[in-house]
Amino acid sequence: MSKAMTTTADTATWRENPAASRLHDAAVRGFASDNYSGVHPEVLAALAAANEGHQVSYGEDDYTARLQELMADHFGSGIECFPVFNGTGANVLSLQSLLPRWGAVVCASTAHINMDENGAPERIGGIKLLHVPTSDGKLTPELIDREAWGWGDEHRAQPLAVSITQTTELGTCYTPQEVRAIAEHAHAKGMKLHMDGARLANAAAHLEVPLRAFTRDAGVDILSFGGTKNGLLFGEVVVALNPEAAHGLVYLRKMNMQLASKMRFLSAQFIALLEGDLWLRSASHANAMAARLRAAVDTIDGVEPTQKTESNGVFAVLPEGVAGRLRESFRFYDWNEMAREVRWMCSFDTSEDDIDAFVAAIRQELAVYNAGKAGT
Amino acid sequence: MSKAMTTTADTATWRENPAASRLHDAAVRGFASDNYSGVHPEVLAALAAANEGHQVSYGEDDYTARLQELMADHFGSGIECFPVFNGTGANVLSLQSLLPRWGAVVCASTAHINMDENGAPERIGGIKLLHVPTSDGKLTPELIDREAWGWGDEHRAQPLAVSITQTTELGTCYTPQEVRAIAEHAHAKGMKLHMDGARLANAAAHLEVPLRAFTRDAGVDILSFGGTKNGLLFGEVVVALNPEAAHGLVYLRKMNMQLASKMRFLSAQFIALLEGDLWLRSASHANAMAARLRAAVDTIDGVEPTQKTESNGVFAVLPEGVAGRLRESFRFYDWNEMAREVRWMCSFDTSEDDIDAFVAAIRQELAVYNAGKAGT
Amino acid sequence: MSKAMTTTADTATWRENPAASRLHDAAVRGFASDNYSGVHPEVLAALAAANEGHQVSYGEDDYTARLQELMADHFGSGIECFPVFNGTGANVLSLQSLLPRWGAVVCASTAHINMDENGAPERIGGIKLLHVPTSDGKLTPELIDREAWGWGDEHRAQPLAVSITQTTELGTCYTPQEVRAIAEHAHAKGMKLHMDGARLANAAAHLEVPLRAFTRDAGVDILSFGGTKNGLLFGEVVVALNPEAAHGLVYLRKMNMQLASKMRFLSAQFIALLEGDLWLRSASHANAMAARLRAAVDTIDGVEPTQKTESNGVFAVLPEGVAGRLRESFRFYDWNEMAREVRWMCSFDTSEDDIDAFVAAIRQELAVYNAGKAGT
Amino acid sequence: MSKAMTTTADTATWRENPAASRLHDAAVRGFASDNYSGVHPEVLAALAAANEGHQVSYGEDDYTARLQELMADHFGSGIECFPVFNGTGANVLSLQSLLPRWGAVVCASTAHINMDENGAPERIGGIKLLHVPTSDGKLTPELIDREAWGWGDEHRAQPLAVSITQTTELGTCYTPQEVRAIAEHAHAKGMKLHMDGARLANAAAHLEVPLRAFTRDAGVDILSFGGTKNGLLFGEVVVALNPEAAHGLVYLRKMNMQLASKMRFLSAQFIALLEGDLWLRSASHANAMAARLRAAVDTIDGVEPTQKTESNGVFAVLPEGVAGRLRESFRFYDWNEMAREVRWMCSFDTSEDDIDAFVAAIRQELAVYNAGKAGT
Repeated sequence: MSKAMTTTADTATWRENPAASRLHDAAVRGFASDNYSGVHPEVLAALAAANEGHQVSYGEDDYTARLQELMADHFGSGIECFPVFNGTGANVLSLQSLLPRWGAVVCASTAHINMDENGAPERIGGIKLLHVPTSDGKLTPELIDREAWGWGDEHRAQPLAVSITQTTELGTCYTPQEVRAIAEHAHAKGMKLHMDGARLANAAAHLEVPLRAFTRDAGVDILSFGGTKNGLLFGEVVVALNPEAAHGLVYLRKMNMQLASKMRFLSAQFIALLEGDLWLRSASHANAMAARLRAAVDTIDGVEPTQKTESNGVFAVLPEGVAGRLRESFRFYDWNEMAREVRWMCSFDTSEDDIDAFVAAIRQELAVYNAGKAGT
Repeated sequence: MSKAMTTTADTATWRENPAASRLHDAAVRGFASDNYSGVHPEVLAALAAANEGHQVSYGEDDYTARLQELMADHFGSGIECFPVFNGTGANVLSLQSLLPRWGAVVCASTAHINMDENGAPERIGGIKLLHVPTSDGKLTPELIDREAWGWGDEHRAQPLAVSITQTTELGTCYTPQEVRAIAEHAHAKGMKLHMDGARLANAAAHLEVPLRAFTRDAGVDILSFGGTKNGLLFGEVVVALNPEAAHGLVYLRKMNMQLASKMRFLSAQFIALLEGDLWLRSASHANAMAARLRAAVDTIDGVEPTQKTESNGVFAVLPEGVAGRLRESFRFYDWNEMAREVRWMCSFDTSEDDIDAFVAAIRQELAVYNAGKAGT
Repeated sequence: MSKAMTTTADTATWRENPAASRLHDAAVRGFASDNYSGVHPEVLAALAAANEGHQVSYGEDDYTARLQELMADHFGSGIECFPVFNGTGANVLSLQSLLPRWGAVVCASTAHINMDENGAPERIGGIKLLHVPTSDGKLTPELIDREAWGWGDEHRAQPLAVSITQTTELGTCYTPQEVRAIAEHAHAKGMKLHMDGARLANAAAHLEVPLRAFTRDAGVDILSFGGTKNGLLFGEVVVALNPEAAHGLVYLRKMNMQLASKMRFLSAQFIALLEGDLWLRSASHANAMAARLRAAVDTIDGVEPTQKTESNGVFAVLPEGVAGRLRESFRFYDWNEMAREVRWMCSFDTSEDDIDAFVAAIRQELAVYNAGKAGT
Repeated sequence: MSKAMTTTADTATWRENPAASRLHDAAVRGFASDNYSGVHPEVLAALAAANEGHQVSYGEDDYTARLQELMADHFGSGIECFPVFNGTGANVLSLQSLLPRWGAVVCASTAHINMDENGAPERIGGIKLLHVPTSDGKLTPELIDREAWGWGDEHRAQPLAVSITQTTELGTCYTPQEVRAIAEHAHAKGMKLHMDGARLANAAAHLEVPLRAFTRDAGVDILSFGGTKNGLLFGEVVVALNPEAAHGLVYLRKMNMQLASKMRFLSAQFIALLEGDLWLRSASHANAMAARLRAAVDTIDGVEPTQKTESNGVFAVLPEGVAGRLRESFRFYDWNEMAREVRWMCSFDTSEDDIDAFVAAIRQELAVYNAGKAGT
């Protein structure tokens, strides 16, 4: 019997010694991004459970079939789902499936597709983005109309879809009514509606309604359902809520390099998320931690929150120099460096102690700053 | 303390009950593809070890730093590596990084980039493929010259790179000398050399030389180093062996939707593969299983192997009807349906018993066929 | 009154002195390409007639309206036409309009779209070409089937159109029956049919049938109708013979940079071509000159024609060294340098004297060659 | 002698009867666009002069060689020029030649590349546009900095070029000093500078300086030199003022479907424009007509010009309903329908009588409007 066989026969060892190759200090945590955290233990367990033996690759496996059922439980029958690698992939695929080659997409200027995807929608998707400035990351029918015009004019990229992000890149959340108003407006003008749901579960947790209430039931045609920021190792799912509006996803996924061969492991993670309440538990926890942080900083003089805290992120303006000093202990990002605006993100694994320690640090830095100002 | 906190605090449960969500019959195995198998236990252990706590996303983590060192151990200093999601992504990125917008790539007609990527190199990469028929999936300087011409002619997509697959899609293997001859030929004509190494480890196992002997030392400029087919959950690495030949990979990865946010988990898998001998152990085992299968079928009258067995796959022509009946018990693919040619792939988890059972089944079906023929 | 006004008021001067800026020797002619010739005088007259005053740009002018009528006269009612700048543009637009993003096109390996467009169909059109070797540049249902397979397989670029060239790049011509057989075959398999008619008029002249007999009536869905090679200054027209098969041409033309602002001048040229018999007169003449050349070389020992002469080009193999010496007096191209095969093209302005002088030169060079050979 | 030969031998007829196919009323003129006008007679004469005989296609002709010399006369030695079909083509080619695949371009929101090219820069060029609102269509270093940031951040399309339009889409004009300030700013930040010169000659006419003063001498790297709007039948030239900054134009032109086969006719038109003073004469005249119009409307109560008149266009806000009634006699476009802003363009063939008649009509409509208002 060959040597390799021994290792495959016995999976006991790795469980006994999981930290064998740990290279990092697992005690370090911060507020930089919900993708700095790792994998929820239940998700890791699901990966292990899906392992061993052979399964048909590229999606004809038992896990992907089960995921389709689970998605239908959440969104209603008739939907189709396509697991992919990452959020940019999910967004580009979704938009391509809605649009002919000459289509354009109306979105907020702050949209991830516009700001953070290195032009993938334009370069890879062949899509013109018609973006509109907003105060809170949220589109409205009125804001959409600033760019939704020019149908039939061959000189203008044709606005044939709207893309909104739920929750937004600024931590705000559309109500089901707001989504429905956008959907009805878009549809009335012959445009389809995409939702970038990289933090979809956080929206459900905030709104306290089922996922379908602000997606399918509100008129969304296609959804990028995010998993990575909610405790998965990796993975998002394109959910065609209105399959008649979306074309060719099976081909688009492959040609856009988003087709996982061992797809069972993508699907198994989403099953772990969606079969029970893990998706909601993790998102609710992350939201609760952000709310705790927000409640605390609301009482600190000198910290000026800039957005409503409707999910797992807090945005605030800090006095000159404070962010830099704070970052010596806790990692987080500037949101708008010129305006001294920062972003603090909570994750499924953020603890109350993490928040409290961070709040204490903020308080201390502000005290130092205020003392310095008073002394001037 | 919130409910979510409990689950994150204790990771013990999932290890005790890993099969909680198992939906498939793990006893089923076949010969369809090396991506039908799951994840090597040591790789799963590495994922668990890399978990918990926070790590900078998008590649600034401790695991990706370590992977860079390990790759340099294998390929020599000065290389740069970029983990990506899948093989198509690795290939398109590699080729784009080598080529200006007007570049074309000479490859074998059977190349995965030409046959199995739904036009991703052309559509997403913007690359014209100039492909050449071969008998065994291997290019030679002479075969390359059939398409390597027309430099300076603006009407012709400019042949500025060659892409070879190691081991090839037909299970054959380039020797280091053959690779070097191609590299020297390509470089002399101003072309760069890409190697699609979806099954790179199988080549090293077959050739019994270090990885760098038939890659960097042989003149390959950039490499798609495959992991998925060698026991990873997912993941490939673009290795710029000659970084001066490859441009902009950091940007190309993001815009091509191949940038994993929690990259530590991509890198940790490759560390598991490359830090010890797992990469070689698994590949050698898969090759040995294919050799065992080949040795057996060489003795079966009516099975006609069509290629040398130089890695983990056996290609053969079967008499009319035999493949179909055989497939009732073991899954595998037709390679060339018209010619009744089939492909049988072995994996890191293929056992000697699997082979022996399959050989017995082949023998029995051939006996039935031969009896039928004799009876006619 | 300003100085500029004077020049616009009086157009007499330029007609009196048309050669003012002539920089070239108009007596020089050769056999390199039908696009080495200039503009037919009737076309130049049409440009002058369409000049002066204002016309709506981008196609809402009187000439483009008239062209639409004329095209309907030739191809039947219900067609739609879109003038564009050049043949590559016409081909890419046509194919894009037939195909979803994941479509591929079956064509002959010698097709202009495959050989001479620097990858524009792939890079700009996003189209995978599945090309098939042929002996004479002509596809058949059987040849198409070599690449027309794999529908539903997401790994394969989906063959959803066939493209044929009439007359072919090798000077051969499909009969109406042959086109119909291809169209029926393509349609039966769910594929649409494009015809690259860069030399469409030459086919009609050869076949002695109306244009629609081997296009619309034979089942062609969309046509690139060439003008440049038939005496226009520039310009081709995409003719959607089956508008239900072609989508978005009005937008595709603009985004593919093929929308002429002063479109009246594109349309006016085609009106000059199509309103009377100029299209046929010029093409018949060019064909007749090729036939005269072919008849002559058929009598010259050592010149071996390689294709039927069914339009305005003659292809032949010459003995070693002959092409080079011949080219000292007459410009023409190698077709296949390795095989010593050359291409001689005739144009609307090729004269009988041109042919006779060329034949005399061929005869003389062959005599020299044969004498040399005899002397060896 | 064949029938076709007769027509080609004698070009006299068409000159005697140029109006044979005139379909339009050449007396109609308006203020819709400078591309509603036709071809300057001297340009038409140049086309006729370049006709007859054979010239090498695709740019190896005597006219294109001469154009290269003339361009060097205007812009200095060392430049390279590439005639193309239209402005969108010139812009996309220029930008592609400056940028790697991951590049982005900072431009004004009103830029033609952003507003009027149906996404060609993004879809065909693969370029992300980072556009900035301006009051007058002109960028400044400060405005550029709103989008020129994020180098090295793989999530952001890399700002590696700036594109300015001269004269702008709003009829305003950069001074040489303003262009130089932008060029120095861009270069200091590692960005290259493109100028969309669809109305370049109008700028020279306004500034009363040579073309190179505000292009090459001011630091512009590449130029789209427009001809169509200045009396050509069609045609623009990409001028690589700094050839070291621009790569692969010869290939990019072909693959972007902008390579004219009978290029002599593109080049001959530009020779007609640039060899003498036609380029300046026509542009000065158009500018003078716009100035005449502006001077007149400045005296009309109720017409509110919105931009400086620094070239051949006048922008103004009209009272409710006036534009509609005025358009019954003179065609022109709304610029901003919501704001009741209209655009009036003059051309090389606009006459003083045209202006005076139009001014009279405006005056009359305003009188009607004012009377109505008074009567309310």
